[in-house]
Amino acid sequence: MQRRLALVKIPGFEYSEAHSDPLRDFNEEIIMSEVQFRNFDETKAYKALQKLQAPSLSAVLDGKRVTSCNSSYELGKQETLHYNYAAKQVDNQILSVLQELSDEQQLIDKFRLIASGEYMNSGENRRVLHHLTRGQLAGSVSHEGRDLGAFYNEQNSRIADFAEEVHAGRITAENGKPFSTVVQVGIGGSDLGPRAMYLALKNHVNSSEGSGEAFRGRGEKLNARFISNVDPDDAADILREIDPSTTLFILVSKSGTTQETLTNEALVLDRLKHAGVKQPRKQIICVTSETSPLAKSSEYLDSFFIDDFIGGRYSSTSAVGGAVLSLAFGADVFREFLDGAHAADAAAMEAGILKNPALLDALIGIWERNFQGFPSTAVLPYSQAMSRFPAHLQQMDMESNGKHVNRDGEQLGYLTGPVIFGEPGTNGQHSFYQLLHQGTDIIPLQFIGFLNSQDGLDVNWEGSTSQQKLNANLAAQIIAFAKGKKDDNPNKTFQGERPSSLLYSKSLTPRVLGALLAHFENKVMFQGLVWNLNSFDQEGVQLGKVLTKQVLGDGELDPALQEFSALLGVRS
Amino acid sequence: MQRRLALVKIPGFEYSEAHSDPLRDFNEEIIMSEVQFRNFDETKAYKALQKLQAPSLSAVLDGKRVTSCNSSYELGKQETLHYNYAAKQVDNQILSVLQELSDEQQLIDKFRLIASGEYMNSGENRRVLHHLTRGQLAGSVSHEGRDLGAFYNEQNSRIADFAEEVHAGRITAENGKPFSTVVQVGIGGSDLGPRAMYLALKNHVNSSEGSGEAFRGRGEKLNARFISNVDPDDAADILREIDPSTTLFILVSKSGTTQETLTNEALVLDRLKHAGVKQPRKQIICVTSETSPLAKSSEYLDSFFIDDFIGGRYSSTSAVGGAVLSLAFGADVFREFLDGAHAADAAAMEAGILKNPALLDALIGIWERNFQGFPSTAVLPYSQAMSRFPAHLQQMDMESNGKHVNRDGEQLGYLTGPVIFGEPGTNGQHSFYQLLHQGTDIIPLQFIGFLNSQDGLDVNWEGSTSQQKLNANLAAQIIAFAKGKKDDNPNKTFQGERPSSLLYSKSLTPRVLGALLAHFENKVMFQGLVWNLNSFDQEGVQLGKVLTKQVLGDGELDPALQEFSALLGVRS
Repeated sequence: MQRRLALVKIPGFEYSEAHSDPLRDFNEEIIMSEVQFRNFDETKAYKALQKLQAPSLSAVLDGKRVTSCNSSYELGKQETLHYNYAAKQVDNQILSVLQELSDEQQLIDKFRLIASGEYMNSGENRRVLHHLTRGQLAGSVSHEGRDLGAFYNEQNSRIADFAEEVHAGRITAENGKPFSTVVQVGIGGSDLGPRAMYLALKNHVNSSEGSGEAFRGRGEKLNARFISNVDPDDAADILREIDPSTTLFILVSKSGTTQETLTNEALVLDRLKHAGVKQPRKQIICVTSETSPLAKSSEYLDSFFIDDFIGGRYSSTSAVGGAVLSLAFGADVFREFLDGAHAADAAAMEAGILKNPALLDALIGIWERNFQGFPSTAVLPYSQAMSRFPAHLQQMDMESNGKHVNRDGEQLGYLTGPVIFGEPGTNGQHSFYQLLHQGTDIIPLQFIGFLNSQDGLDVNWEGSTSQQKLNANLAAQIIAFAKGKKDDNPNKTFQGERPSSLLYSKSLTPRVLGALLAHFENKVMFQGLVWNLNSFDQEGVQLGKVLTKQVLGDGELDPALQEFSALLGVRS
Repeated sequence: MQRRLALVKIPGFEYSEAHSDPLRDFNEEIIMSEVQFRNFDETKAYKALQKLQAPSLSAVLDGKRVTSCNSSYELGKQETLHYNYAAKQVDNQILSVLQELSDEQQLIDKFRLIASGEYMNSGENRRVLHHLTRGQLAGSVSHEGRDLGAFYNEQNSRIADFAEEVHAGRITAENGKPFSTVVQVGIGGSDLGPRAMYLALKNHVNSSEGSGEAFRGRGEKLNARFISNVDPDDAADILREIDPSTTLFILVSKSGTTQETLTNEALVLDRLKHAGVKQPRKQIICVTSETSPLAKSSEYLDSFFIDDFIGGRYSSTSAVGGAVLSLAFGADVFREFLDGAHAADAAAMEAGILKNPALLDALIGIWERNFQGFPSTAVLPYSQAMSRFPAHLQQMDMESNGKHVNRDGEQLGYLTGPVIFGEPGTNGQHSFYQLLHQGTDIIPLQFIGFLNSQDGLDVNWEGSTSQQKLNANLAAQIIAFAKGKKDDNPNKTFQGERPSSLLYSKSLTPRVLGALLAHFENKVMFQGLVWNLNSFDQEGVQLGKVLTKQVLGDGELDPALQEFSALLGVRS
């Protein structure tokens, strides 16, 4: 157990002495608040939870529970995102201990520390500022004399101006034609999040049949594609399908040294030259840190910046997502997306767990993982537009909380992050739901649904629309998983007692998407804080990089590595 | 424990009395062989395995082990697929008991029963004949006087002829133009497998820079797309991007009653009419069973048939995959794919586990699941072309073996199918590998790699090509997972002892893809036989369908279902 003093501005508390650490140059009044970091199994709540029993869903899940077990985000412009936990195996007693856990682990105070710019990425000695990319939660944060909120806003403004110039045809391809396509070249956090967000909003923006909501019918301004894998076939496939001569490329690498991304840049440059472009880097913009090798080159058309305080997997709301989304859809769509995320962040500051959906979701997940012993969680959006959202969450969650040491580097004695997987419904129903219903492990489920489709193209067939069928399936699955069904034939028996939650809203708009993203980011953050680990580093990716470099070098290798390299054709 | 007599032709055994069950009209000599179905935990091997300890990979994994722990498929035309298990936590003692397990559970005899047309889908009283769609393993199988192998071949020939007519422009769209696009409309097994196979071969067929292998450079004959989800946005997205007036649609539903597929047909018909097509069903072909409502309609352009003995998730090598793959790439590509699958099937008949990669993979998986206690398995192809292969395996494995009762419907007392998930490398490295390396659960890994890229478009950057970097990463990961790394900083410590296997070949060709598919199908089959369950039914999907129908009807609902339906806008 470690006791340390941390500095945070908490509204409602009295202000006391000013900040004295020169590394932490908050430019405003702050207060001293005592925050303690302790392992989860050292809390009183941990011991209390060990003694509690999960309620039976088939016993408790009635209509009243469905209407009452609901916690909502108000997102502005009359948009709302709801979190329903009626089909989770919790009761008032469990929820009350989970509230104690939240208080005991000081989750809200620690979130305020993060939002205030505290160096909560302890191992790497970095602040954690993705919340600040969409709005200010807890006073401004300055670093080496610069207001970082203003810096992120400035990058967004520069992107908005740049996108406007491209859309207006004032910035063109080398041949003078307007750009028709934008291709993001990045991997991991520079790929999965922006790609998932792009796919989630594409139909919304392109719909020509909608009911007049904000961005409907405007149409994509540039068609977007993504290259990520170092496998050359990934780039080959995309580069074959586009016209490089009218394509704008976005090279995304915070460090400016990501092997996959620079290798793919080489492939892109090669194709641009083949297409007759004489100065190929003048059709490339960079999103990188100001100190990276990419930023220092004047060969590129332009560069937009992030910094070390934005983790890759949390960068969708920074310039990493901003460039491609603004170029594809317009900067106003990206701004709505940020506003939705900011509204959800603000709601995550609430200390009462029943009024804070992200916190509640996090704590129920802890209950399922550490006390019910469930090894994985399925994310199941009933929306084809969210087809890659589960892959993004898989990264965000598993890379953040797949850790075996606490924030001080001590081995932990309890389970941390689960495996996350998922596919859109109803597709999943025809795939892996068999195991979810009747397998020997119980997998908690996270459903996502929308009352309306994005596009509006729909038909009535056999008495209902596709959208009605989609949501009828979703409602039916929640109940089938929760309540099961007895049958004289054990093969047709459903044991039920498979817990699920439901996030839902009227439509999948930019604002709702931003809130959904922030919901999961904050859920993962709260879980990491309960487990007392650092959710913001990723030391587990280093060893593979080191060994890869060895294989590509010419020094002596571990004999088994030598043989595997040989049989894969890399070394002889 | 159940004892029954089953009928099977096993080469090398003496023939005895003829088949007497009128339901099972084998048209050839058969022998009586005693096959026993017993639960896994009733075997001697189960008890023996409980006493064994997994070896330490950092202790045993040397260069010699890498070259010796290899089992290969010879696929004809000088193509080979290798299965390397050097980095699995098995030793000679464990392998020897796994051989005993295979013998004791009569896995090869039972595979022969399946291949011979025995009614091994016991609950549904169906044969299991997907192997027969690609070749004959154990004598012909006849049903109601029809030779089923000949029937499947006939469908393939009809598809080949039809595809040839389309490619030659003799079968055209209503407006007289040649078809430019083919869109498969299906869900689950009618979608995931064919889609994954299409993506896996697209670059191979389209490459214009390759080294002259069989199908390189021919180019896709029709561009293929897929509509699956009942979410109307799925169809909207695809239908916006194609020209319906020159698109051929394939409606795939074995029963001819799949809700999602018929709903999407209504959307397709609507779009075809909007595009001015007067007889829209004349731009649709069906893949269905001969007795389905779809087969009975003369409105469609044509129909191709499967039967009840081809399970949806095993249908990629039937007309379900054959129609779209033959139309997109040509029937010769599809035939190569079948030949690769057949070669792998034939190899799976081998009783010695070290010479039978699918069987060995299955048994090592059993060791990991039931004795090492690992809850899930990651499938990690280092090939972007295989991006949807893990999703297909997720369906095939989890729907087949996610069961809690044995084949006689009795509750099982041991774990069955694990959660399957995965994404292509190197993308996964930048996503969830953190948890795989340093999380609190151990997840066994199934790597797939190829010496060459499909397309051939590649560049040398910083001393190596993209393909070399890709495979250097793959080799490095195997060793990093197996051996880990000690460090004074526990946060930089890798415990290692994360087992993995590697399937690899020279290139991802149609033949190799067929073998990979069959490898996993047969692996899942063998595991189901060890667990003594029916891998070929899916009772777990029924309850959701029943409740969905209730929601879409107007009868009274379970009160919680009523409320969930209301908040999702389906009922008020």
